[in-house]
Amino acid sequence: MSIVVVGSVAFDTVQTPFGRAEAIVGGSATYFSLAASQFTAVNVVAVVGEDFGERELAVFGGKQIDLGGLERAPGKTFRWGGEYSYDLNSRETLFTELNVFETFQPKLPPSYRQTDILFLGNIHPSIQLQVLEQVESRRLVAIDTMNLWIETTPAELRAVLKRVDIVLINDSEARELAREFNLMRAARAIQAMGPRLLVIKRGENGVLLFNEEHVFVAPAYPLETVFDPTGAGDTFAGGFLGYLAQGQALDDEGLRRAIVFGSALGSFCVEDFGTRRLEKLTRDEVVDRYRRFKRLTHFEDIEPGE
Amino acid sequence: MSIVVVGSVAFDTVQTPFGRAEAIVGGSATYFSLAASQFTAVNVVAVVGEDFGERELAVFGGKQIDLGGLERAPGKTFRWGGEYSYDLNSRETLFTELNVFETFQPKLPPSYRQTDILFLGNIHPSIQLQVLEQVESRRLVAIDTMNLWIETTPAELRAVLKRVDIVLINDSEARELAREFNLMRAARAIQAMGPRLLVIKRGENGVLLFNEEHVFVAPAYPLETVFDPTGAGDTFAGGFLGYLAQGQALDDEGLRRAIVFGSALGSFCVEDFGTRRLEKLTRDEVVDRYRRFKRLTHFEDIEPGE
Repeated sequence: MSIVVVGSVAFDTVQTPFGRAEAIVGGSATYFSLAASQFTAVNVVAVVGEDFGERELAVFGGKQIDLGGLERAPGKTFRWGGEYSYDLNSRETLFTELNVFETFQPKLPPSYRQTDILFLGNIHPSIQLQVLEQVESRRLVAIDTMNLWIETTPAELRAVLKRVDIVLINDSEARELAREFNLMRAARAIQAMGPRLLVIKRGENGVLLFNEEHVFVAPAYPLETVFDPTGAGDTFAGGFLGYLAQGQALDDEGLRRAIVFGSALGSFCVEDFGTRRLEKLTRDEVVDRYRRFKRLTHFEDIEPGE
Repeated sequence: MSIVVVGSVAFDTVQTPFGRAEAIVGGSATYFSLAASQFTAVNVVAVVGEDFGERELAVFGGKQIDLGGLERAPGKTFRWGGEYSYDLNSRETLFTELNVFETFQPKLPPSYRQTDILFLGNIHPSIQLQVLEQVESRRLVAIDTMNLWIETTPAELRAVLKRVDIVLINDSEARELAREFNLMRAARAIQAMGPRLLVIKRGENGVLLFNEEHVFVAPAYPLETVFDPTGAGDTFAGGFLGYLAQGQALDDEGLRRAIVFGSALGSFCVEDFGTRRLEKLTRDEVVDRYRRFKRLTHFEDIEPGE
């Protein structure tokens, strides 16, 4: 089984109440692939500039991550800088230098065109469509998107939504996309736009999964120390889809377990700056946290007559 | 088994984006007793004025609610008015007329002084202490409190905390009481002040239960229609403690089930204005919603080696 991610690889500069990290490797494809590689081989399609060297590539080293689709273009790598509020619940973008990402035209290597799962990170919907055209077969396509595309390219985004199986967005984006405040009604409205499955991310308040019939709610793992929320959403997506790409059935129970694995991966991501925690994460730690999620949320059925 | 609640009975005027209700019966003791009476007999200690007549008393009618501790004082009943924001997540208090509640000195009737569970609603900590002095025996004491008492009567509140088993507060109050933003650390700090158990309420994001060893997270029930959040917290408390007062063990599993019953009751409360939904609620509906919570949050264990 295999998984392809199309997204960004970037240099992030992050300021949190607990410290500062300068030009560390980030981007949606980075976080996604580190998380998904806990479960399956990951094929990365992204672009970096000439300033992205061996030291940066080492982030992906020793893992089942194939960089055959990582293009190196003349110029500088995408750079982003952000600062988090004291409670880590909001952040301000300090700068965005798209650089080589601005003209990124993703090309899937021939060996990536038949894939089990395809994840299209948060990029322009027209680019997402171009990638979809290149895929010869797949079991599942998932996308992320953001308020920028909801507001500026609604028609293109609608065209993408008609062709994908899963959308992963945060709660405010879901409300904006559906033009509906109530999340239950917003979810049904988005599913009516095309995707069979919808994952609504609520940060420290966890995740909602909607399929045709059911709603599943998973909490975020309560941590005593949250260092840096950057990349948590893409890490969640990598854990969620990576687990499914192991060959898991896409039924309700399989999707629920995948959501919990995604939440587990996301909870590790925020424990340290950037990708630091994910780079050294072991499979045993992931399984242990899955079991802690079970303990965190479990309660007994009641007996008839109770 | 029995439960005593000491709190307010009030006339509420509520404005939500969906409508307005004028001078309907509300107050912490009202919502609490309607919820708890789904499980056990409830003894109410509160005060009303001369304007509280038969029509208002009918709210408690036909239920296992004893009003022997409901004092009638000269003057008017406590009145509160509030208006909710478009998303129901914040509210503005438009007026507070304490009236007879201002000089309320709760007196437990002799038959209430030996009780299984005592719930002290959100009232002045000195009054909470006065009630504790009147209790001859009890298995469990729970309190609610608010930012006003955290800020203005911290010493009295600390004295109460030393003598109770469970505190139920919302997340911002927990942070303020512990002077700690991280909820996990805030919870441990509050437990160190006395209470063995802590319930942190997060509104539409559910509830956290802390005991000595474990954390349990329950979501709020996702509803397509939320009409009026007034009273949801006291309704939660009534369902939670009412279920325990049936004779449930106060162990981890029993407390978890109680939290889910509390959440179920809270989810009914918000479906209509004021107490309307709770008045006609049946035991079958409560049990059905408990089972829906189970389906909403359930996921399978993973097998070794998966």
